Amino acid sequence: MTQRIAVYPGSFDPIHRGHIDLIDRCRGLFDVLYVAVLANESKKSLFTVEERVEMIRGLVAKYPECRVECFSGLLVDFMDSVGAKVVVRGLRAVSDFDYEFQMALMNRKLNPDVETLFMVPKDDLTYVSSRLLKEVCALGGDLSSLLPDIIWHKLKQRLSPPAKTLHV
Amino acid sequence: MTQRIAVYPGSFDPIHRGHIDLIDRCRGLFDVLYVAVLANESKKSLFTVEERVEMIRGLVAKYPECRVECFSGLLVDFMDSVGAKVVVRGLRAVSDFDYEFQMALMNRKLNPDVETLFMVPKDDLTYVSSRLLKEVCALGGDLSSLLPDIIWHKLKQRLSPPAKTLHV
Amino acid sequence: MTQRIAVYPGSFDPIHRGHIDLIDRCRGLFDVLYVAVLANESKKSLFTVEERVEMIRGLVAKYPECRVECFSGLLVDFMDSVGAKVVVRGLRAVSDFDYEFQMALMNRKLNPDVETLFMVPKDDLTYVSSRLLKEVCALGGDLSSLLPDIIWHKLKQRLSPPAKTLHV
Amino acid sequence: MTQRIAVYPGSFDPIHRGHIDLIDRCRGLFDVLYVAVLANESKKSLFTVEERVEMIRGLVAKYPECRVECFSGLLVDFMDSVGAKVVVRGLRAVSDFDYEFQMALMNRKLNPDVETLFMVPKDDLTYVSSRLLKEVCALGGDLSSLLPDIIWHKLKQRLSPPAKTLHV
Amino acid sequence: MTQRIAVYPGSFDPIHRGHIDLIDRCRGLFDVLYVAVLANESKKSLFTVEERVEMIRGLVAKYPECRVECFSGLLVDFMDSVGAKVVVRGLRAVSDFDYEFQMALMNRKLNPDVETLFMVPKDDLTYVSSRLLKEVCALGGDLSSLLPDIIWHKLKQRLSPPAKTLHV
Amino acid sequence: MTQRIAVYPGSFDPIHRGHIDLIDRCRGLFDVLYVAVLANESKKSLFTVEERVEMIRGLVAKYPECRVECFSGLLVDFMDSVGAKVVVRGLRAVSDFDYEFQMALMNRKLNPDVETLFMVPKDDLTYVSSRLLKEVCALGGDLSSLLPDIIWHKLKQRLSPPAKTLHV
Repeated sequence: MTQRIAVYPGSFDPIHRGHIDLIDRCRGLFDVLYVAVLANESKKSLFTVEERVEMIRGLVAKYPECRVECFSGLLVDFMDSVGAKVVVRGLRAVSDFDYEFQMALMNRKLNPDVETLFMVPKDDLTYVSSRLLKEVCALGGDLSSLLPDIIWHKLKQRLSPPAKTLHV
Repeated sequence: MTQRIAVYPGSFDPIHRGHIDLIDRCRGLFDVLYVAVLANESKKSLFTVEERVEMIRGLVAKYPECRVECFSGLLVDFMDSVGAKVVVRGLRAVSDFDYEFQMALMNRKLNPDVETLFMVPKDDLTYVSSRLLKEVCALGGDLSSLLPDIIWHKLKQRLSPPAKTLHV
Repeated sequence: MTQRIAVYPGSFDPIHRGHIDLIDRCRGLFDVLYVAVLANESKKSLFTVEERVEMIRGLVAKYPECRVECFSGLLVDFMDSVGAKVVVRGLRAVSDFDYEFQMALMNRKLNPDVETLFMVPKDDLTYVSSRLLKEVCALGGDLSSLLPDIIWHKLKQRLSPPAKTLHV
Repeated sequence: MTQRIAVYPGSFDPIHRGHIDLIDRCRGLFDVLYVAVLANESKKSLFTVEERVEMIRGLVAKYPECRVECFSGLLVDFMDSVGAKVVVRGLRAVSDFDYEFQMALMNRKLNPDVETLFMVPKDDLTYVSSRLLKEVCALGGDLSSLLPDIIWHKLKQRLSPPAKTLHV
Repeated sequence: MTQRIAVYPGSFDPIHRGHIDLIDRCRGLFDVLYVAVLANESKKSLFTVEERVEMIRGLVAKYPECRVECFSGLLVDFMDSVGAKVVVRGLRAVSDFDYEFQMALMNRKLNPDVETLFMVPKDDLTYVSSRLLKEVCALGGDLSSLLPDIIWHKLKQRLSPPAKTLHV
Repeated sequence: MTQRIAVYPGSFDPIHRGHIDLIDRCRGLFDVLYVAVLANESKKSLFTVEERVEMIRGLVAKYPECRVECFSGLLVDFMDSVGAKVVVRGLRAVSDFDYEFQMALMNRKLNPDVETLFMVPKDDLTYVSSRLLKEVCALGGDLSSLLPDIIWHKLKQRLSPPAKTLHV
């Protein structure tokens, strides 16, 4: 029987509980789930693509069906290279809807065999986004409950200025 | 290995090319796909649930993975009875979004193991709905290209008054 | 040169300042503008279709390019009968959007030559709808500024119980 | 100093945890908060307006600033009778938005001194509505965690057929 | 009795009639209303935060309950420093909705005691935004009716090139 | 009789089949249709405004009622200079809606005689935008069916690195 291979693409800069919730929900539905980290050269990221891949690998190591890879270029080309036919995306809010539909239809245009499946995140995580987490963390907000501990510590380290210590 | 069983629920009163497009897109993703016809007693349907099941069975007979059943009561109870964990739904427009999210979250509340997957229909079928097809057909509009031939003929038969013929 | 003929369809039960604003905005764009009153037998209307046509005729009598007709059946058939190729509709809010798009695409399906043009109503009339006006009037609200005087008086007459007078 | 009096209007057929969450959030913001139960004669309700008022009174008895009243007719007339200038409403989803805006602007039209304040419900209650709760309960779903115990028992009693017992 | 203190945060670059309408609507609802001007270092503003604070102070000097302050960092930290529990925001359009909900839920996460209240602006000011006003003014459009006179003059001064005069 | 003159404004960087579909739909409705190419100095474009005007002129040369001009500054000023009273815009998705409404209301504010007409693009072109076409083309995607041949070749030329050839 053919393996069912899906891809969950994103920037994951950094990965947060909303992403992890989605991975948990969909990994059982496929034989292989690729978490595909976009190495977007034009958008400045906080963590390098290598750091992001490594962070996610640490978190999904316990799931035998999950693989973490980075990609650049067209998503459909990456999917072709790993034999995937399904894209998984979370739909948090109506404002996601039009953009996600546009991307789903464009990917279908580029490869008619590619289908996009949208999933609903956990209801108390709909407001969480990597961009907002970075902004709030940079201003000193405590978001420890919205990220895995290890990611939260890395995020604080990256965004907070070192405490000013006085050497007399 | 566990079978992956999904349910595509709806009223299908009657089934149209938008529904068939969605069945075509998702049937390959699962080992078994149930097309589950809602026997909704409170909403008056044009075709009986038996007629609707029979129409769909005729159309999907060629797909070994598709089964057609009617159900009443809670969708999660039907899913439990057939061992399904996944609901498949089409998202045509933003106006679908809030209702579909509400149903997906309610079904998750009723059974936390149930996941809803949303798919994007073919772009030139987004405006097609059973309700609108029935309204337009009743007014004499030609929608033959939006339904399978056999359904279109049944729909016309049901909605059009018999031509008045004079027997002298 | 061919005449440019447009149709502004609706229930107009009754016509209000939002409708009139739209007629004012679009009548100059066409050689003939039909205000087409839907004689919808399945939806119970407050005013008969004859009353609605008469009310609108009184209001647009001063505009030589405006004609008021009732229609039943498919809008595209009415348009065909009067030689119109353009439908005009007001878009008040996002909730109108999906329904109006669905209708525009269906009408294009039924007659590919028919185009729908959407216009933006006056910004302080976006919340006005015939349905809401009837509900509020029935509860005694004063909406005299949202309808032409003559329509407001007819609406009050139709919806308000006669004042209880005591005959000693 | 003038008292700040607000009204939280609704059908509350029946009241659920989403409503109670909103009462909890806004009662501290005003000197008096009226929970105003709409006695809507045209819409068939499951519980009579007297039952609904009594249920809510039991739940908010502990809050000295809360009063529960029924009203019919225009909301602005009820507000006038109790000296309230503020309407409080929950905004759960985009589909609420247009309707709620329309009502807020109409109420402002009817009384320019009336302001509507929208609040965001608890994120894990956004999918809860009285209508959906009634539908699911009638089909046997367990929603005990979405309603206060006493309301849940009343709802089950009202909607469930008595268990068939066999007396030999 | 505890004072009810609210904050109306924004960039106000510059303040326009839409902002002023909202201040007018909500200032009576609270004992103290802070207009909180965001000193956003990452977003380039046309007016310095000092200029913006001074402009608003001039406009609200007549309202004893209004105070104007600038803030940087997290809004919830500013609110804590002035003892405010309520954020007031205008909701102009559906496109505001998702962003504003995300911020409201994030602020609630950062401080569960903080509530966000959304208000509906005057219906003929919904299309007004500081960004659009600046763009149109820079192109020579006359927006004098959408801003207080003094702000309109400052805006023109800042955005228009000085008239070329010829000294022979 | 007064000529009916409309303007279809945009960046057209580059023009694609979605734009051309809209021109086809609306050119018959007016005596003159200006395709007005925005020379936006602040937004970096891929093609110069001269290139864009020339590309469109080539495509609409066969339509006697179409003229192609560039403009900078306010759209209403350009319209004034050519005697146009109507703006034509495509509405592809709900996310367009709020922005387009804001612009339509602002243009009406700047010139009350200007009306904006929205049209629905061909249903299988709703996901096409110049921005997305450029992104996908730069990543090597084949979009030849979404652009006229001549534009597709220019786009590939501009965005693709020249093939590395070896000169021994």
